[in-house]
Amino acid sequence: MTFRAPLIGILGGMGPQAGLDLADKLIAGTNASVDQDHLPFVLFSLPDRVPDRTSFLFSRTDLNPASAIADQFEKMDEIGVTIAVMACNTAHAGPIFDRVLELLKERGVRMRILHLIRETVAFIGRTYPDIRRVGILGTQGTYRSHLYDDALQDAGFEAVLPDENVRRNNIHTALYDPEFGIKSFSNPVSSQASSLIHSAVDHVRDRGAEAVILGCTELPLAVRDNYAGDVPILDPARIMAALLIRETYPERAGKNP
Amino acid sequence: MTFRAPLIGILGGMGPQAGLDLADKLIAGTNASVDQDHLPFVLFSLPDRVPDRTSFLFSRTDLNPASAIADQFEKMDEIGVTIAVMACNTAHAGPIFDRVLELLKERGVRMRILHLIRETVAFIGRTYPDIRRVGILGTQGTYRSHLYDDALQDAGFEAVLPDENVRRNNIHTALYDPEFGIKSFSNPVSSQASSLIHSAVDHVRDRGAEAVILGCTELPLAVRDNYAGDVPILDPARIMAALLIRETYPERAGKNP
Repeated sequence: MTFRAPLIGILGGMGPQAGLDLADKLIAGTNASVDQDHLPFVLFSLPDRVPDRTSFLFSRTDLNPASAIADQFEKMDEIGVTIAVMACNTAHAGPIFDRVLELLKERGVRMRILHLIRETVAFIGRTYPDIRRVGILGTQGTYRSHLYDDALQDAGFEAVLPDENVRRNNIHTALYDPEFGIKSFSNPVSSQASSLIHSAVDHVRDRGAEAVILGCTELPLAVRDNYAGDVPILDPARIMAALLIRETYPERAGKNP
Repeated sequence: MTFRAPLIGILGGMGPQAGLDLADKLIAGTNASVDQDHLPFVLFSLPDRVPDRTSFLFSRTDLNPASAIADQFEKMDEIGVTIAVMACNTAHAGPIFDRVLELLKERGVRMRILHLIRETVAFIGRTYPDIRRVGILGTQGTYRSHLYDDALQDAGFEAVLPDENVRRNNIHTALYDPEFGIKSFSNPVSSQASSLIHSAVDHVRDRGAEAVILGCTELPLAVRDNYAGDVPILDPARIMAALLIRETYPERAGKNP
């Protein structure tokens, strides 16, 4: 028994909520009036088998999570997944993502794998052809691995980064503060966290950003879509959900994004 | 490559949010300080392949969804799932669930499958040994298929059902009203819907219920845990999440329920 094509694969677990978040946006982005209208997907969430991505990228361990990730993609391929994506920003850094592709090629796995970061950048190019300067909010790991800035520059954009003070005192604090941070309190997000992130949006806009990428799964929880007026606020998970729909069952695409 | 045991399987898609809801409660119920502490699971959500459960139970079609469900369990078994559950109340009705087990037996699939309804009832017996009368809030389909009342009676409990008026004007309306119903507005639930459901809780409590089962995925969104004072309000998805943790990685069990 093999599932009928097309079938979407979400590789989650990095962390576990990020996989659910993408699945949730896939459902929300589908134009459906009964259960049967919703798109078929499998979500793999095996966080205990995937070594820490940041530790590997910053050379605190030699253990490349690519191998555990490739195992999961291989299994998805076996059960009939036709298009897949990792619900994790950090895992798209070259030393991990490129190694995943290499391993899958060695094993003869030909399933299509979308690149969260590059697809987000491509979306901006398609949707806002006049925009050149794009702000990035993310974790310290995102900045240090140059995930979004490299992809933006490769595509001809200029990356607008917050200064070190805003990275630490606004974004990092809003995410990790034990008293009010989004990692601890996400439903609802505290007004302190929300306000710190909104100020970070203002900061990159003041530096010239004409659009702002929220390059960390938890950030969209803290920012109103229309916060920055005519400066688009971009959620990579929502962009990816829309792309997955368009690439599998385009007739089911909803209005967002 | 086979995944290491134990591995949890969630058969979702009926509807799609119910699978995510159970996965979310699995994550929330796990005592974890890093991503790697979280439990491994796969979620299958293939709503387009599973015929409508209610239509089959009420003889509006001959197409038993059991076959499509069994296909998915078989595939889970192949990739190494050791314990699985369907995130759907209705699919546990005898004509569907029993047929699923029959098909899997014919195919030699031996993976353990938990029964959402019976495990919820067993949980009540274990946790509240003095309780005899249990209220049920659910959809019209839940009442007509006697899902919870049969399971409660089999286990020696007395089922306390709301009268027809409350079923229709409180529960059904709170779920399906196009202006304020939970199916349309769940984040947050409207105060009208919440108030209608709270009244339904009061109603079964007035009829003698010493605990109340919220036998429909959306209902827990509308009821505060401690709404009925010392009368426990029971969410089968949360009970199942806790059971899945206990049966796979008991050392990771959190405090709830």
